[in-house]
Amino acid sequence: MRVELLCTGDELVTGLITDTNSTYLEARLFDLGVKVERVVLVGDVRPDITHALLAAASRADVVVVSGGLGPTSDDFTLECAAAAAGVPMTEDARVLGWLRERYAERGMSPNLNAGQLRMARIPQGSEPVRNPAGSAPLVILTLGRCRLFFLPGVPREYRALLDGEVLPRIRTWLEAEPGRMHRAFRLLRTVGMGESVLDQQVMPLAPSHPRVVFGFRTHAPENHLKLMAEAPSQSEADAALAAAEADCRRVLGASVFGADAEEYAAALLEKLGRAKATLAAAESCTGGLIAQQLTAVPGASSVFIGGAVVYSEKMKTAWVGVPPAVLERHTAVSRETAIAMAEGVRAACGTTYGLSVTGYAGPGGGTPEDPVGTVYCALAGAGMPTRCERITLSGDRDRVRLFAASHTLEMLRQHLLAAAATP
Amino acid sequence: MRVELLCTGDELVTGLITDTNSTYLEARLFDLGVKVERVVLVGDVRPDITHALLAAASRADVVVVSGGLGPTSDDFTLECAAAAAGVPMTEDARVLGWLRERYAERGMSPNLNAGQLRMARIPQGSEPVRNPAGSAPLVILTLGRCRLFFLPGVPREYRALLDGEVLPRIRTWLEAEPGRMHRAFRLLRTVGMGESVLDQQVMPLAPSHPRVVFGFRTHAPENHLKLMAEAPSQSEADAALAAAEADCRRVLGASVFGADAEEYAAALLEKLGRAKATLAAAESCTGGLIAQQLTAVPGASSVFIGGAVVYSEKMKTAWVGVPPAVLERHTAVSRETAIAMAEGVRAACGTTYGLSVTGYAGPGGGTPEDPVGTVYCALAGAGMPTRCERITLSGDRDRVRLFAASHTLEMLRQHLLAAAATP
Repeated sequence: MRVELLCTGDELVTGLITDTNSTYLEARLFDLGVKVERVVLVGDVRPDITHALLAAASRADVVVVSGGLGPTSDDFTLECAAAAAGVPMTEDARVLGWLRERYAERGMSPNLNAGQLRMARIPQGSEPVRNPAGSAPLVILTLGRCRLFFLPGVPREYRALLDGEVLPRIRTWLEAEPGRMHRAFRLLRTVGMGESVLDQQVMPLAPSHPRVVFGFRTHAPENHLKLMAEAPSQSEADAALAAAEADCRRVLGASVFGADAEEYAAALLEKLGRAKATLAAAESCTGGLIAQQLTAVPGASSVFIGGAVVYSEKMKTAWVGVPPAVLERHTAVSRETAIAMAEGVRAACGTTYGLSVTGYAGPGGGTPEDPVGTVYCALAGAGMPTRCERITLSGDRDRVRLFAASHTLEMLRQHLLAAAATP
Repeated sequence: MRVELLCTGDELVTGLITDTNSTYLEARLFDLGVKVERVVLVGDVRPDITHALLAAASRADVVVVSGGLGPTSDDFTLECAAAAAGVPMTEDARVLGWLRERYAERGMSPNLNAGQLRMARIPQGSEPVRNPAGSAPLVILTLGRCRLFFLPGVPREYRALLDGEVLPRIRTWLEAEPGRMHRAFRLLRTVGMGESVLDQQVMPLAPSHPRVVFGFRTHAPENHLKLMAEAPSQSEADAALAAAEADCRRVLGASVFGADAEEYAAALLEKLGRAKATLAAAESCTGGLIAQQLTAVPGASSVFIGGAVVYSEKMKTAWVGVPPAVLERHTAVSRETAIAMAEGVRAACGTTYGLSVTGYAGPGGGTPEDPVGTVYCALAGAGMPTRCERITLSGDRDRVRLFAASHTLEMLRQHLLAAAATP
């Protein structure tokens, strides 16, 4: 089944509103095994809408159209549909009745004004369906072999009509399709591996999994691998996906931190919680980014005890006990300071682990030996030597901070993985 | 000038990502007086991309294409462009040089792997422009009378190339158009005022400024007022804008914290710097969000001395000196604790001001008197009584944290404004 979406409205092409309706519908359709082929956004321009309707109907089996069904003079999507179909607009008695009932329920006059009457006018031969969440009805029209659904653009009404009326019809048609394909989907989330490296590791596996489509997505500092299996039955699709996922996980190893909707910070906190471990962090160049990411997760307080944003030498000493002599001899951006910060914040908070990060985020600062982008990250823990890593990051201040926070948290996650693997 | 956008990528038609790049570009173009005519999203399907390129080029003067320029095998937008133009792909020596330089700067091998080499292959006769924020270049191609810009889909790179390369070219072409209207634009950024209140305050002024279009944009926790003046000459547009801005500023008063690109944290730090004041913050429910926002600004370290993320009672006492008796009698979420945190972090860091915030961000926690969403914010300073405000916020954990951080910072900004107004 070929499906296209058409969204109308000046607000969608002038930067006032981001089209999230389509994202919602695309995800629902993808769950049904349908990949939307095209989404088109046009402004409130009659010939553009009419042309887009005809073009979509010439290509697709189903077109879902949204916007322009309301009571105001810039709502004329159905008039464009009538023009495309070559039929007149007619006042529909069923819609009139629904509108009168709706207004009566709200204590409003049953004498519809001109704007309200507009909503009862639909293309001749089309089928109206009552809107449970608003006034303008869903309208279904057939053009050639294509079925077009017209929905209001208001997200609440759009979703109510989609879930209640449009998707059940599409599901029925899909189930009636001979030889239809079933799909299964997995997102593997990795960190610490560049997109081109990820591609090189994984793509050699693709030929062994002909039923699985491999795709990539960058979501800095993470890179995600998308696997989509397609087969004549759900069990075959599930099996093909499972085999591809197992192969990919084998080559990607510990770079994979989670799957599907699993977020990094939540996954790390969950690992810490399972190990009955607690955590504290001392941050210089990341300025609270690590603490903020961890505490964004509900229930973080049972694992994350405290974070010190030590943006001055004085506070490095006062809060996390970095000896003034270390700062003087090695400077605030050094291996020695990072180690003292990690050990100091762990001691101050009495936690299982202490993380620290200090570096030059830029644009100013840096030294010839440690230019902007140089970051020292350290991990201290009970019964283990404190580790420190020096990394060099490129990009602007935001990017350096983002990747510095990620690398620091990764030191802990990799340690937990190694610890769990050791008997 | 007729402009269309084309965005490619399976993630855009399967509900994984909402296309916010187009919203950004549409708004920038609208500021230049151009309404985008059509936005098309297609998946990673070669014939669909090629067809969409040709169709857009047949209608528009400028097409901005995004996505599919990276190193992986599902990046083939430029190959589709070459097919549409009927030209071969060629390895471009300039792009190769840029890529080698970029990898060398990062200490990576200058021997490009197959994926990296892909990024140097562009349609014959097209013009590459170096990407300041990533690897894949901007590519400019002419098809008939239409100019097509190909950009990476990664928002950071997309925006850098748009602002730095694409929009300046479009602006030059627009300025060469005969009989064009001149525009002047101002964004007034407000905080602490709901969108409907902002609308009610400002819209009565609109009839007195017929040359100015008033628009609104929500960017939580901020609300922005957009003023766009249009006139036959630049001086008339500038004068109309200045008059409207003065009127709006009069009714909005201290809710306006900045204009155009001025960000909240930078504006606040600049105010503190001018007053030769320093700042420290103790955060509980916001978990480092305040520190992170402030330290994202280059040079923050001259004003922001330290932040304590005191996510446990123990650290509230250890780092910012909240007396255990206060915690025991009043609990960690209370006026008394907030005041002790603000005064304590100010004393610990030796700063002019201390801010604190403690509350229930949810979804768990809260008490009958202080349910989820209750937040106490406090401001301590030299020679002034410490202030504390209790607010009640609705929404999920992220929203409560965001607005709690904003309200806390606003206490300081409003204090600085009042102090500056007092002789």
